[in-house]
Amino acid sequence: IQSKLPGVSTTIFSVMSKLAAEHNAINLSQGFPDYPCDPMLIDLVNKAMKDGFNQYAPMPGSPLLTRNIAEKVENLYKVKYNPDTEITVTAGGTQAIFTALTTIINNGDEVIIFEPAYDSYAPTIKLLGGLVKTYELAPPNYEIDWDMVKKLFTAKTRMIILNSPQNPTGSILSDNDMQALIKLISGTDILILSDEVYEHLIYDEQKHQSVMLYPELKERSFIVASFGKLLHATGWKLGYCLAPETLTKEFRKIHQFNVFSVNSAMQQAIAQYIKEPANYLGIGNFFQEKRDYFRGLLAESRFKLLPCNGSYFQCASYSDISEEKDTDFSIRLIKEFGVATIPVSAFYQKATDHKIIRFCFAKENSTLALAAEKLKNV
Amino acid sequence: IQSKLPGVSTTIFSVMSKLAAEHNAINLSQGFPDYPCDPMLIDLVNKAMKDGFNQYAPMPGSPLLTRNIAEKVENLYKVKYNPDTEITVTAGGTQAIFTALTTIINNGDEVIIFEPAYDSYAPTIKLLGGLVKTYELAPPNYEIDWDMVKKLFTAKTRMIILNSPQNPTGSILSDNDMQALIKLISGTDILILSDEVYEHLIYDEQKHQSVMLYPELKERSFIVASFGKLLHATGWKLGYCLAPETLTKEFRKIHQFNVFSVNSAMQQAIAQYIKEPANYLGIGNFFQEKRDYFRGLLAESRFKLLPCNGSYFQCASYSDISEEKDTDFSIRLIKEFGVATIPVSAFYQKATDHKIIRFCFAKENSTLALAAEKLKNV
Ligand SMILES: CSCCC(=O)C(=O)O
Ligand SMILES: CSCCC(=O)C(=O)O
Repeated sequence: IQSKLPGVSTTIFSVMSKLAAEHNAINLSQGFPDYPCDPMLIDLVNKAMKDGFNQYAPMPGSPLLTRNIAEKVENLYKVKYNPDTEITVTAGGTQAIFTALTTIINNGDEVIIFEPAYDSYAPTIKLLGGLVKTYELAPPNYEIDWDMVKKLFTAKTRMIILNSPQNPTGSILSDNDMQALIKLISGTDILILSDEVYEHLIYDEQKHQSVMLYPELKERSFIVASFGKLLHATGWKLGYCLAPETLTKEFRKIHQFNVFSVNSAMQQAIAQYIKEPANYLGIGNFFQEKRDYFRGLLAESRFKLLPCNGSYFQCASYSDISEEKDTDFSIRLIKEFGVATIPVSAFYQKATDHKIIRFCFAKENSTLALAAEKLKNV
Repeated sequence: IQSKLPGVSTTIFSVMSKLAAEHNAINLSQGFPDYPCDPMLIDLVNKAMKDGFNQYAPMPGSPLLTRNIAEKVENLYKVKYNPDTEITVTAGGTQAIFTALTTIINNGDEVIIFEPAYDSYAPTIKLLGGLVKTYELAPPNYEIDWDMVKKLFTAKTRMIILNSPQNPTGSILSDNDMQALIKLISGTDILILSDEVYEHLIYDEQKHQSVMLYPELKERSFIVASFGKLLHATGWKLGYCLAPETLTKEFRKIHQFNVFSVNSAMQQAIAQYIKEPANYLGIGNFFQEKRDYFRGLLAESRFKLLPCNGSYFQCASYSDISEEKDTDFSIRLIKEFGVATIPVSAFYQKATDHKIIRFCFAKENSTLALAAEKLKNV
């Protein structure tokens, strides 16, 4: 058969996690914690299953969960979403991204993305017959020059994908960015897909500039969020998509024929858990401490740390250490030093090698310490 | 925005389950049990979560689960699938169907389906730019005349979707059907998507003719299975797709950008549970008894029962009762008689009204008895 994604192989996350396991390396590659999620959350799932939440949840999501998402969003951002018509629970953030793109993109439509970028965006756009227009962010700050973005606009521009805090760079969008974006798209019918799965992971008293805070953006945005990232349970595969009613209506048409609905017991448990903001509001500080701890440890190494304003990823340049390509270097890190990372070139369509690798610091401090010991030998 | 699925509204399953809840009716509409799943299965999930299976499972599925699926399939059908390269765990049967179609169908490709049919097939095909070529099955036996199927073939025919046991009709494909199909497609490169989510629900000593039993079919088939249906836990949203390596390779490229991976704790639990065939082999008899019980009860009603050879659906004609359209009739059944069903016209693209409704009998006997009491008054 003819491949619809001829250039694509297994995602770097699978490749690196698998190599890490094979070489018994410390896995700082794929973005997931190595410590347990809250036992209370597990008990809530257990109780929900025992209470009989084992059959199809309603297609858009369990009513208790969509209601409590609306409440959480309003508490955090002072913005309203209607749980019945503007919130859809998804099988993780990735499925929300896939479904939003499928809802909108037609043959020939252009989508602007900022690279390095999460590796599902570009292939999904291409799968749909869309064209990827890439803005390349430059290390170390990965900032956006919006005048340059404007140059990518054509009559076919249909969507812009934002991701703040950004995976893999840990950069964030500022109010200035948002204002510039508003100016740029005003008078166009360009839509926005805002991947905000790291919304709570933002540091140094900075504020997450969700697109929902800007009415001119909110009205044309799909916003993607992740309970896996929020609740330290990436394997539960639960997230959600916020969008105005007209967009949600079309999103759900695709959603219902893609996965139909999402795990009912876990929806029930999460609904109860997030009702109590204390259960998640500490997550920003929690990860800031990990970031600081990890950066402190690596200060003694030959890696040059890039800024990290958000997300649970820390990028580092190894240009003082080696001339190797980042894929070769990171494979050698696994095999010779026992630490798995992600080569940042994997976040570009055309492998663009800045000699930078990404560490995930959502790990026990003891894991980070052990990894740092090994990394100091590099 | 322009809708990609302009004709589509909320699935009939959502509509009817919602109406049933609103009118406090007995819900024999959407296909899910009203009794608990095995408490042992719940305990296994609880244990898996406590053991730390809360982070991303490997993209193609948990190794223990794909291995145990291979073992189950070999025990049942004496056919081998390689767990590493030919089995992918999905977020339910519907996601497997969506992903298989997305893997294969390009603009202008034709797909043959048999109507009445599960309502995701046609919209998904259209979403992909494919053309639906429909073979209409005739009540009461819903048999296939393969010479007539042949007339639907063109140079653009890319795929045939089979579904045995069939939803909603409860009809099954025989060895004769499979032989006829083999003849028809030999020498073509037509692929098969075989929706076998009711594989275990087959009655009266009949045998499930899985496409995997026929090498000429197996080599060109995606086979979709459902743990929700097998384990009475439709809300867990877990299924899998079997396909030869070349097909699986492309399937996984789409899968990894659609949902990436599937619930890890539940995969772990199901893997352990299905290791013991006694945990599921009784399901055919279990549902056969329910079918017989329900048919016995309805024998005293004015509904005319159609044959039911498989699945947990019983179709019935109400032509002796009313001239109403089946949608009107089934809404009246909810409002006036307190029983929710599915009008079979919902399984056709062009509402084709044979005055037939579908009951789901995956319910407690007491529920079926109560429903039958009400249905006798109709
Ligand atoms: C599905 S892997 C998801 C993204 C992530 O966690 C990563 O970038 O490592
Ligand atoms: C997602 S609803 C699935 C199919 C089913 O159970 C039904 O036909 O009722």
